[in-house]
Amino acid sequence: MPDNGSTRAVMLRSQALTAQAFAPFGDVIEIDGRESHSINDGTCRRYDDLACIDVTAQGGRVSLSIFEADSRPLPLRIELLERHPLGSQAFVPLGPQPFLVVVADDGDLISDRIHVYLSCGQQGVNYRRNVWHHPLIALHERARFLVVDRAGLGPNCEERALAEAVMVSM
Amino acid sequence: MPDNGSTRAVMLRSQALTAQAFAPFGDVIEIDGRESHSINDGTCRRYDDLACIDVTAQGGRVSLSIFEADSRPLPLRIELLERHPLGSQAFVPLGPQPFLVVVADDGDLISDRIHVYLSCGQQGVNYRRNVWHHPLIALHERARFLVVDRAGLGPNCEERALAEAVMVSM
Repeated sequence: MPDNGSTRAVMLRSQALTAQAFAPFGDVIEIDGRESHSINDGTCRRYDDLACIDVTAQGGRVSLSIFEADSRPLPLRIELLERHPLGSQAFVPLGPQPFLVVVADDGDLISDRIHVYLSCGQQGVNYRRNVWHHPLIALHERARFLVVDRAGLGPNCEERALAEAVMVSM
Repeated sequence: MPDNGSTRAVMLRSQALTAQAFAPFGDVIEIDGRESHSINDGTCRRYDDLACIDVTAQGGRVSLSIFEADSRPLPLRIELLERHPLGSQAFVPLGPQPFLVVVADDGDLISDRIHVYLSCGQQGVNYRRNVWHHPLIALHERARFLVVDRAGLGPNCEERALAEAVMVSM
């Protein structure tokens, strides 16, 4: 019988995005539960160094961009992931916009090794370099994200098809 | 007659924050009026390289932080500015939060050389290194900003008193 699309795909549901759960893949960029210090005569709290920005391989430099993403309907069928061998990539929502974060362990991209997290919208993520991840899955219309990643020469994007298509949802 | 405070200070009102007006001091981080290219199968617009992040002097590295700032009542009396000789410093509001941006031309910090801009809340700024500026002037309660600046050794903050205190407002 031929594969008739989404009806046969494994469904993966999200777990809450926490620094601990996400640690194998990178950083959660958030202030809840973090230490701060007071600056500007006590009018401001500074939460320092929330992500390890790793972009200087092969002469790379940091790039600051904004992505404006359309919302994706859930459940969403996904068939490939990507990774950046030369640099980390951080996404921080510019507004309280929840989004799905899909990453995978290294190795064959089978459903057991794919992990889905839900950012509450007050959380960004920073993918460590070489971590398999899905492109942005915004849940609100025209969600904007500040992106901190690498600019420079060299092949910095690989794509790989999943061993089996999966559906992801909240 | 002694200076009795705010009653004698010059009042400076803001102008709109535009890339052209702000060019002598750094970058306006925004997407309006900028070129984008389509990524992720047409579901996302990428606005690239919105700021020149200049943090590698004397072995510096990029730092990604969040500042949570209290609102400041207007008009606000300001008496000093600061600058960072070793690195640029970018502030992007995490939400549509307007804020005031106060910068000065190099040289004596007299009121004629001080410029006040109003970010509409969809705009961040990136201060070029060595540009005199005032610490965050948030207008909404507990406004959060993503900050991209320099971490590393070396003296990277100078403060200088204004030649005359000024009041700033919208």
